[in-house]
Amino acid sequence: MSESPGSALRDLRERRPLIHQITNYVVMNETANATLAIGALPVMAHAVEEVEEMASVAGSLVLNIGTLSAPWIEAMLLAGKAANAAGAPVVLDPVGVGATTFRTETAKRILDEVDVAIVRGNAAEIAALAGLEAEIRGVEAIVAAAGGAEIARTAAARLGVTAAVTGRVDHVSDGDRTLAIANGDPLLAAITGSGCISTALTGCFVAVRPDAPVAAAAYALAALGVAAEAAAHEASGPGTFHARLYDGLYALTPEALDPRTRISGA
Amino acid sequence: MSESPGSALRDLRERRPLIHQITNYVVMNETANATLAIGALPVMAHAVEEVEEMASVAGSLVLNIGTLSAPWIEAMLLAGKAANAAGAPVVLDPVGVGATTFRTETAKRILDEVDVAIVRGNAAEIAALAGLEAEIRGVEAIVAAAGGAEIARTAAARLGVTAAVTGRVDHVSDGDRTLAIANGDPLLAAITGSGCISTALTGCFVAVRPDAPVAAAAYALAALGVAAEAAAHEASGPGTFHARLYDGLYALTPEALDPRTRISGA
Amino acid sequence: MSESPGSALRDLRERRPLIHQITNYVVMNETANATLAIGALPVMAHAVEEVEEMASVAGSLVLNIGTLSAPWIEAMLLAGKAANAAGAPVVLDPVGVGATTFRTETAKRILDEVDVAIVRGNAAEIAALAGLEAEIRGVEAIVAAAGGAEIARTAAARLGVTAAVTGRVDHVSDGDRTLAIANGDPLLAAITGSGCISTALTGCFVAVRPDAPVAAAAYALAALGVAAEAAAHEASGPGTFHARLYDGLYALTPEALDPRTRISGA
Repeated sequence: MSESPGSALRDLRERRPLIHQITNYVVMNETANATLAIGALPVMAHAVEEVEEMASVAGSLVLNIGTLSAPWIEAMLLAGKAANAAGAPVVLDPVGVGATTFRTETAKRILDEVDVAIVRGNAAEIAALAGLEAEIRGVEAIVAAAGGAEIARTAAARLGVTAAVTGRVDHVSDGDRTLAIANGDPLLAAITGSGCISTALTGCFVAVRPDAPVAAAAYALAALGVAAEAAAHEASGPGTFHARLYDGLYALTPEALDPRTRISGA
Repeated sequence: MSESPGSALRDLRERRPLIHQITNYVVMNETANATLAIGALPVMAHAVEEVEEMASVAGSLVLNIGTLSAPWIEAMLLAGKAANAAGAPVVLDPVGVGATTFRTETAKRILDEVDVAIVRGNAAEIAALAGLEAEIRGVEAIVAAAGGAEIARTAAARLGVTAAVTGRVDHVSDGDRTLAIANGDPLLAAITGSGCISTALTGCFVAVRPDAPVAAAAYALAALGVAAEAAAHEASGPGTFHARLYDGLYALTPEALDPRTRISGA
Repeated sequence: MSESPGSALRDLRERRPLIHQITNYVVMNETANATLAIGALPVMAHAVEEVEEMASVAGSLVLNIGTLSAPWIEAMLLAGKAANAAGAPVVLDPVGVGATTFRTETAKRILDEVDVAIVRGNAAEIAALAGLEAEIRGVEAIVAAAGGAEIARTAAARLGVTAAVTGRVDHVSDGDRTLAIANGDPLLAAITGSGCISTALTGCFVAVRPDAPVAAAAYALAALGVAAEAAAHEASGPGTFHARLYDGLYALTPEALDPRTRISGA
């Protein structure tokens, strides 16, 4: 099988990488279950006493600032540096950046002190992180004017990362190469944590594609989108959709994933 | 449409208020999903560095003491005062008041330092908070003797709030006016967090009815009860009921809600 | 009805013991819902200001180190000593012992300072806690050489506890008597928290069988296994299995449980 989302999924299920997640209280169970369902092994650990040891044996590290407090920031920085030293890619989810100064400054501090491979957020978060909001008034205006592709491209170039901007259509860019992923279902926006799940899955795929962050992020978003399409088909609302989303991730096979993936250049 | 649960639901879905929740670890995902399903936007933030900024832009603030610790209490007080200053109504869920001195004193301290619009709890919690337990031995005795309506009325008068007492039949009172809400299903008592969800939904409705806290609380409890009735119809136990409860909240429409609502004077 | 899993379940549902749980963020909602579904009452409380008061009125105390930090360790030790003083059995889940020094040392410190009745973990965790890993290289090697029964027996003897080792077949031992429990379904390994749920249920059963920890642990694992078998029958993947697992626990009856239980000497 040539390189594709399916081949990466096959590798993921064979290697079962350990994904160290320092994430928010709201979604811990959800991202752990999504990680298991796609075929990797989640571990949540946030104590400053152990995060370096844990991050140094992980296949990747996911940092999510959804419910921050000072001790957790310290732990994220320690874990991030340990992951860098061990060569494990770091994925950052800047939840709520732009909503409070504390979040914006914390996300920027992580980007300053840790070598982050991929940042995954919605258009508002990524635009705020890249300083686009200060230039164009209102995220809706940016999205209307430029679209997620332009936000992803600019953020990637400015921040020196691969940027994944999720929305109706998702966009991933490293500043040079930009991909659009058109899988998914509107019910993803009706449950909390679907963005955080996409970040956790990005951590899973980049653990087996550490040298190809653009592809890894696109594969993760396509996998989640394809699972969401299947889940929506069986759901009668966001609660049953949520349960079936894990069924959908678990049921993905390399063979079934590739033909359903809608990834294109953007 | 004249004033009714349905008209409030319509306003809620049009305005999509931001509901800032400082709540317990057990139910964060659940209250966030219920908030999304009813049509509002949840945000969880508990760091002292950001709660004032977040509360000051929210449509309402929900404080829930289910898994307390000292830093969270400080954050609740800061957020409560910021919400008061911004004119956003504050809803308090005194989880476990009466079970430990720490919880009872914390709930009383919040009531002392923050202008709380609505307190939502079960009969034991509200009776303990109002000091009724010290006078009549045993919550079962109080409920048997007085019923939820009397507990709600007395607590409202003593505490200077709107009190919402949930149980088989729910009661809401501001001391003068008392309503009974007879929607719901026994399976609500078989899942954790159904009380916390009712508090979060109260936060949603009071965000669009800030000057009518008795009506807002009654609408929230009726909406949850109607959704629970629909969910129970499709469920085979508490797990599938739980998933379908979000389906039920999401599927509510103003037109369908009003005729199914059982709110009466008490 | 003579002594059996079913008779213990009947007692549990009649007495509805309060199960105080100081557990990890990932699974709090799940263990609370499992506790409710089996018929007991969960309470989560971790503040040093209240854990002693809460533990002293509980039927049992469950300590789970899945997401540790220093204040939580202090709370676990205080609660453990209070439960000991009140005569309430303590159950320990040493999540991730062996993965980091911090976890291993914390679990050993709890065992040193608290009188623990039952330790519930997987083979790797229990082997690490009992020091078996240092002697035989690799948990897979131990399991292959000795099996879960031997790990449970050795750990029980060395640690002075009842040890419950869960896996494809579960084993419970106090060093003298060893039981094998052959209920369950592979989907349990596809959701996060199934181990933590088994520990919480062990806390429920030992609350009504404080003088028979081996039986209590075996009953809990059998009950979870039987519920999982029913859930798997109706599930289309780990998400729907997860929801139906609570349905299965809730639907258990003493009469239906006993004939489906596969407990044997080992």
